[in-house]
Amino acid sequence: MRIALDAMGGDYAPEAIVKGAILAAQEIDEGTSLLLIGKEDVVSSLLKEYGYTGNNITVVNASQVIEMGEHPTKALTQKTDSSISIGYGLLKMQKADAFCSAGNTGAMLVGSMFSVKAIEGILRPPIANFVPKLGGGYGIMLDVGANADCKPEVLEQFGMLGYIYAKYVLEIPNPKVGLMNLGEEEGKGTTVIQAAYQRLKANTSLNFIGNIEGRDLFNDKADVIVCDGYTGNIILKMAESIYDILNHKGIHDPFFDKFNYEAEGGSPILGVNGNVVIGHGVSSPTAVKHMVLQAQKMASTKVWERFKKHYSE
Amino acid sequence: MRIALDAMGGDYAPEAIVKGAILAAQEIDEGTSLLLIGKEDVVSSLLKEYGYTGNNITVVNASQVIEMGEHPTKALTQKTDSSISIGYGLLKMQKADAFCSAGNTGAMLVGSMFSVKAIEGILRPPIANFVPKLGGGYGIMLDVGANADCKPEVLEQFGMLGYIYAKYVLEIPNPKVGLMNLGEEEGKGTTVIQAAYQRLKANTSLNFIGNIEGRDLFNDKADVIVCDGYTGNIILKMAESIYDILNHKGIHDPFFDKFNYEAEGGSPILGVNGNVVIGHGVSSPTAVKHMVLQAQKMASTKVWERFKKHYSE
Repeated sequence: MRIALDAMGGDYAPEAIVKGAILAAQEIDEGTSLLLIGKEDVVSSLLKEYGYTGNNITVVNASQVIEMGEHPTKALTQKTDSSISIGYGLLKMQKADAFCSAGNTGAMLVGSMFSVKAIEGILRPPIANFVPKLGGGYGIMLDVGANADCKPEVLEQFGMLGYIYAKYVLEIPNPKVGLMNLGEEEGKGTTVIQAAYQRLKANTSLNFIGNIEGRDLFNDKADVIVCDGYTGNIILKMAESIYDILNHKGIHDPFFDKFNYEAEGGSPILGVNGNVVIGHGVSSPTAVKHMVLQAQKMASTKVWERFKKHYSE
Repeated sequence: MRIALDAMGGDYAPEAIVKGAILAAQEIDEGTSLLLIGKEDVVSSLLKEYGYTGNNITVVNASQVIEMGEHPTKALTQKTDSSISIGYGLLKMQKADAFCSAGNTGAMLVGSMFSVKAIEGILRPPIANFVPKLGGGYGIMLDVGANADCKPEVLEQFGMLGYIYAKYVLEIPNPKVGLMNLGEEEGKGTTVIQAAYQRLKANTSLNFIGNIEGRDLFNDKADVIVCDGYTGNIILKMAESIYDILNHKGIHDPFFDKFNYEAEGGSPILGVNGNVVIGHGVSSPTAVKHMVLQAQKMASTKVWERFKKHYSE
């Protein structure tokens, strides 16, 4: 198995990414290798500088870099030899089983739609994120920002994608799918949410448990939290700020420490023809390591192929 | 000045409410009195039992009680001698300068629309809530649940109502109004949020500072946080759950302790012809005291009359 990693993406690239790649290389399965994409001379000399002597990292040259602030579509069109373009090329040609980057989020999103493309039948691929649970483990919340406005049928698909991801990648048997709402009762919420409720309820391929509220985010009511990208993004950033405030105050706790983005390392784009993980811009070596391990898990559990199979049946 | 308080509303009514009324009676301004509405014999004997000997609480008889689970419209129509109906009657006839209750939220909302009614020009009265700020004090967030779907013009009004409330009741000079969104840049968000942005930007009566994100809830970017009731409700309940989790873990901190609903005691309904505060169902005596003091502040700063004046100009 080969995991492609963008060495040039992220606020602390390439140094933090190369360090993270070396950490990951020590933990990935035998038979898995890392394809580290970036300016070959820079990346190779960093690998040397950091004392890497293994044989499971291969450097793939990419002469260009898409910067964090660049316009996604324009950058992808103009920089065809950028690390993101090369990474998606490898994924599309199945020379990589997964691609991850802590670089320009917009370029990663647009790139996935341009190259591997959405799975046939998937209306709007979401970005997912992980929610630590008080009882241990993680739930998955989607969308967290790719699609601000979502139609009911799009929210239903988020439920299905999240269900499959939670079942195979998070290894939760029959994951509980909840719809984020302002009250528990059926009939609550916006007109879109009310319609999404009916669609999820009628979908017999997933385990819909009904509405959940803001207070249920961290409890065991739902393993899969369905919401539009506007709402999910606000929840995610609010949770991150709670972690930052606690951290700043010197308050440490095993549960709240899991709010740290480093713990899971990245957010997968679901519903495209390939395993893609986007890392946080400020990704540290530890975060990069976890992003790679998550990508490996997605590839080994064949999660995108499962999405595809579900929507082709 | 007279503040009407529903003695029968709330999970721990009438005991907790009467206790709270006695606490409030010790702190309200000279010249302010409390109208404690409920079953006269019950309320009077509780006042006696709890040792109240002052002269600033008057018991107003109401023979009926709207229970927490009752259907709001039906209950209000049938129970015209309930404490909520009597309270709104006093407010409408200007025999009370404010009315507060920790009872059936739906009945309080519907009651406000039936009795004192929305201020002319106000499309959808919101419920507001208070957000503790890291730098001290509170901001105000609205709507937190009265209106799940909100049109851009409704969100603009929330900004205006919040601006006036923050300026006069919270005494923040020229409060900063922020629109809750998934990114800072103009043009981000749902189509409704994008349109609301333009309306708020064009409104010269308030101090619009643009979009804020989930991570900005507790910092000093905005004093007034504008969002629809679906989003605000999720944020509010998530914040409450964070407080509960910290509390359960025995983690106490002056900032996070302000997440406790008791600290402000209640949520005002804004944009109706009168000062109305809704308390949390589980209101304790301390919460009731703060709810009364908040109602007094709203009345003394003439906040609803200011709303009315703004929208009649």
